[in-house]
Amino acid sequence: MKIGVDILSGEQKPEVLIRGAVKGLKKIKGEIVLIGPEEIIEKTIEQYPWASGRIRIEHTEEVISMREIPTEALKKKPNSSVAIGMRLIEKGEIDAFVSPGNTGATIAAAYRYLGRLKGVARPGILAPVPDGTGGFTALIDVGANPECKPVNLVQFAVMGEVYMREVCGVAKPLVGILSNGEERYKGTELTRKAFKILSRLGCNFVGYVEGRDIFTGKLDVAVCDGFTGNIILKTVEGMGLSFINFLKNMVSKNILKQVGALVLLPEFRELKKRMDYAEYGGAPLLGMNGHIIITHGSSGEKEIMNAVRIAGEMVNHKLNQNIVNALINYGINKRQWF
Amino acid sequence: MKIGVDILSGEQKPEVLIRGAVKGLKKIKGEIVLIGPEEIIEKTIEQYPWASGRIRIEHTEEVISMREIPTEALKKKPNSSVAIGMRLIEKGEIDAFVSPGNTGATIAAAYRYLGRLKGVARPGILAPVPDGTGGFTALIDVGANPECKPVNLVQFAVMGEVYMREVCGVAKPLVGILSNGEERYKGTELTRKAFKILSRLGCNFVGYVEGRDIFTGKLDVAVCDGFTGNIILKTVEGMGLSFINFLKNMVSKNILKQVGALVLLPEFRELKKRMDYAEYGGAPLLGMNGHIIITHGSSGEKEIMNAVRIAGEMVNHKLNQNIVNALINYGINKRQWF
Repeated sequence: MKIGVDILSGEQKPEVLIRGAVKGLKKIKGEIVLIGPEEIIEKTIEQYPWASGRIRIEHTEEVISMREIPTEALKKKPNSSVAIGMRLIEKGEIDAFVSPGNTGATIAAAYRYLGRLKGVARPGILAPVPDGTGGFTALIDVGANPECKPVNLVQFAVMGEVYMREVCGVAKPLVGILSNGEERYKGTELTRKAFKILSRLGCNFVGYVEGRDIFTGKLDVAVCDGFTGNIILKTVEGMGLSFINFLKNMVSKNILKQVGALVLLPEFRELKKRMDYAEYGGAPLLGMNGHIIITHGSSGEKEIMNAVRIAGEMVNHKLNQNIVNALINYGINKRQWF
Repeated sequence: MKIGVDILSGEQKPEVLIRGAVKGLKKIKGEIVLIGPEEIIEKTIEQYPWASGRIRIEHTEEVISMREIPTEALKKKPNSSVAIGMRLIEKGEIDAFVSPGNTGATIAAAYRYLGRLKGVARPGILAPVPDGTGGFTALIDVGANPECKPVNLVQFAVMGEVYMREVCGVAKPLVGILSNGEERYKGTELTRKAFKILSRLGCNFVGYVEGRDIFTGKLDVAVCDGFTGNIILKTVEGMGLSFINFLKNMVSKNILKQVGALVLLPEFRELKKRMDYAEYGGAPLLGMNGHIIITHGSSGEKEIMNAVRIAGEMVNHKLNQNIVNALINYGINKRQWF
């Protein structure tokens, strides 16, 4: 197995991402292909003699920044790290690709070099949202498709179900559609149509769920359009950050407070861990003709390490083949649906 | 000034809501009209001799529960507390109405007895979302209109702006549209059209904002359709609850932890206060021909007290007249827009 890692598109230094990727290498059986400046990579991996022979380098210094307009940037920079990653998948030289880059550019590059998976109308990004109980709820889509048709929501549900079962080991993943109320007549025309189709499909569809259900552990996959999902994800991130900042400021006040906080340190650490996206290794882009994980732009060692580990699981469990099969089994792989 | 309070539709006992309303009475100049069972009201207000002469009772024992289908329930129960409240506004016997009841039934009753405010295409519910810095961001709409046209978003923006300026004393409220990214080309067809109109309107429009901006204090009004807004609101509530539960469980572990928590008690209290919706007294339903506040079904004394106070501010500052004027001034009050 070979996992490609774009070490150039993140906000952190390439060295940090390289170290994360090498730590990830310990969690998989196979090799990693580091995409970025040869010199920096060679120098950094010198520290890991055990890994020699299991790391390949694909040199590039071209990178698409977070601020660039995806399709334009992709044309101007054919040798950007993200374009190279996709071409390596296309040529069969890597089995999965991890990138901390511009989400739009990653999706555009995936469309250009790989295309969609057979039977998939539109891809979706699945984000693991820590549910506060130590696990997570998979939210799909968080931004690949701001405007959806019913078939998109239905396929997101199926892709989310397959991901949770195959990659995360949840035997019977419970799937719900996010809505403004649990009653069937709630939601929008879009969600009501998707509700009808999912009810008949035979997956573990629990119906409509509400925003709060993301944090009760009663659900494995929460389905929504990419506009709503992106806002929810960023709301959750923003709220978590505001919470952590509050706790930090709280203890910097005086010695007595610091002692109090010290006593509670294991609990604060546990809380931080439970809220930490990095534990779950980024967001898989599901439905493209290749295994792709998009991580936060700010990803450090831990998130990249976990992304490599999860990418390994995706490959091990033949995620994409399972998605194709599931769509066929459920009978929602036909063009007439799209 | 007279503020009507539905003390029957909440999940808490009428006595609790009566006490909250009476505390609210201290914050306004005028009277309260308590809508619910006469006997319970009379017995409870005996404890407040200072308030005698400032409390009127509208007897009813009919109530629409949270589980009932709004329009059906409204037909079956013409003397439900929420219907009586709306009729009291209609007859000019109260200036504002506070209800902790079924949101759908409240909106349906408002449509039936009051109708929309002049120039308003659709009403919106504005929810104050604690932003973690001690203030709040007004999120509108959180559920009155799951499916919106551009004019709805634009009018939500204007109603939110007027509310924040007149009722909350923010001199120049900053208004943004929630979207899946800050760039103009992001969002959906709906948000892009609303963006264009708002850019030309002359209000303090900051463009697209992201979910995380709700918690940075950089924004006063966040506009979205009622489907997205409702999911966001419940996500925030669910995440807050999961936090509070974590902190509670954390300190119940042993004596040492309890001492640590005791030292940090003022900070935990402050945190709880900053996350507490009850501080802001419920969610005004804006755009109907009357001043209406919808509070959580679980509202206790504090939320009802604050809702009465805010209702008083709405009346004092002639909120609805100001909304009508603002729509005329911005030129978005015409039927052809709807």
